[in-house]
Amino acid sequence: MEPMARRETDLWFTEYQTPDMRLGLRISDILLNIQTPYQHLLVVKTEQYGNLMALDGAIMITDRDEFTYHEMMSHLALCSHPKPKRVLVVGGGDGGIVRELVRYDVLEKVTLVDIDEQVIEASRKFFPSVSSALDNPKVEVRPMDALVYIKDHQDEFDVIIVDSTDPVDFAAGLFEEAFFRDVHRALRNDGMVVSQTESPMGHPGILRTAYREMRKVFPVVELCWGIMPTYPTGSWTYTLASKVHDPRKPLRLPPEGTKYYSSKIHEACFVLPPFLEKILGEGQDPA
Amino acid sequence: MEPMARRETDLWFTEYQTPDMRLGLRISDILLNIQTPYQHLLVVKTEQYGNLMALDGAIMITDRDEFTYHEMMSHLALCSHPKPKRVLVVGGGDGGIVRELVRYDVLEKVTLVDIDEQVIEASRKFFPSVSSALDNPKVEVRPMDALVYIKDHQDEFDVIIVDSTDPVDFAAGLFEEAFFRDVHRALRNDGMVVSQTESPMGHPGILRTAYREMRKVFPVVELCWGIMPTYPTGSWTYTLASKVHDPRKPLRLPPEGTKYYSSKIHEACFVLPPFLEKILGEGQDPA
Repeated sequence: MEPMARRETDLWFTEYQTPDMRLGLRISDILLNIQTPYQHLLVVKTEQYGNLMALDGAIMITDRDEFTYHEMMSHLALCSHPKPKRVLVVGGGDGGIVRELVRYDVLEKVTLVDIDEQVIEASRKFFPSVSSALDNPKVEVRPMDALVYIKDHQDEFDVIIVDSTDPVDFAAGLFEEAFFRDVHRALRNDGMVVSQTESPMGHPGILRTAYREMRKVFPVVELCWGIMPTYPTGSWTYTLASKVHDPRKPLRLPPEGTKYYSSKIHEACFVLPPFLEKILGEGQDPA
Repeated sequence: MEPMARRETDLWFTEYQTPDMRLGLRISDILLNIQTPYQHLLVVKTEQYGNLMALDGAIMITDRDEFTYHEMMSHLALCSHPKPKRVLVVGGGDGGIVRELVRYDVLEKVTLVDIDEQVIEASRKFFPSVSSALDNPKVEVRPMDALVYIKDHQDEFDVIIVDSTDPVDFAAGLFEEAFFRDVHRALRNDGMVVSQTESPMGHPGILRTAYREMRKVFPVVELCWGIMPTYPTGSWTYTLASKVHDPRKPLRLPPEGTKYYSSKIHEACFVLPPFLEKILGEGQDPA
């Protein structure tokens, strides 16, 4: 052991996206590192993407690229529902979706239900630009289990947005038919739901299952996709299910200043590459 | 140092996509590991993506996801040029683009010019499904410097496809105005060129520069984008420049069995998210 050159501090956050694939991001500091009652909550300062929040080791948001995910989760439904006055956000405690929603004048009230209050607090503290609308008068924050909350509500929401973590542990139920039946009941007669449905290249099985579960409950189900650099494989899918309206057709313009979403992206994002159509197994659906 | 549990072999290939961001893929073997006259050439067997080829540490192709890149690089131009009979591929020694091209009956001859013969040989040996068309009678393979080759040809090609490595060392010239002038001269009167132009999220500066250099030379320049999981950030851009024809309009169907490309994807992929339009700086171009 001879070499004695000056060394440098070398700190990394690593997400094992699968046992065989990992993304590493250089960090300069750990800002929060706690076990909540529900999950491990980590906030680090990365060189590449600004502040980063991970839950159970999986990246949820970074300062630099959260806009692609949050804009897709919000504007697709808000622009294609004719009158989205009451909106429920399931999960999404960071507040990124709520920030987008409150920019719509048509919106009267949004209720955010996240099981983990400490995620909300961490976002307030370390992601001011993401959590900026959590104190908006149109916003009600309910820290509780969304699976319980939704059973107590019916015929109440125009849009429900399911911003879940990956389908493991307490979040697994958010990808199942029983939950979508509760969502259906909580929606008004012409309601619409949007759910993140994981990576088109990385999670074909989860994606297909979620899509089929939603089709058991809703007459209209449409999948779309977009860029999301810090999520596994760098692209992501979103599934919209609807009682009446076609979610593929934008009816209004988004608020000014969107960075990822536009009316043209709205229409383009539902065009699926053939491999993705095949995953959905059109024509082979047993339902 | 007490613990004496049984350990397991743990081998990884890591690409430093930037000094602060790295993608790691578990490998079971190294199949080729040589320095050619031009670059370091590595072929490894990964658990996640099958065989992988890297040049100077950067992933070029993997068995599992090469189709997205190769289909976008091929079919956009081949489907939007009215009569693509003679095609030149610059770089692309793995043969992935050539494999797509020979499926068009309208194509009479494709010339592949790659500076590094050992890339071609490695692909023949370790990527049979990528290199499968290199011996097709319509294909001429020329192992030489494309910057030199193209200066000797004029008014000869309908389509030129620039499948370059990143713009460093000998490949840097492939992103510059002088090269695009040579490309312009080598193209016929209604010729078209497509070039890979790096990541929309990761390389905005390179992307903008390449786009502007092409606009100095061609009257029509259009940027599009798609999924590419093992390239930095997971999405990638392609820029098409043309003397006459609009590359955004597909005129024919692709060969059967494409997995990423379709006529509808062709039209959708030119719809740019606002952040990407901003990178191109529409309206601020000094030219």
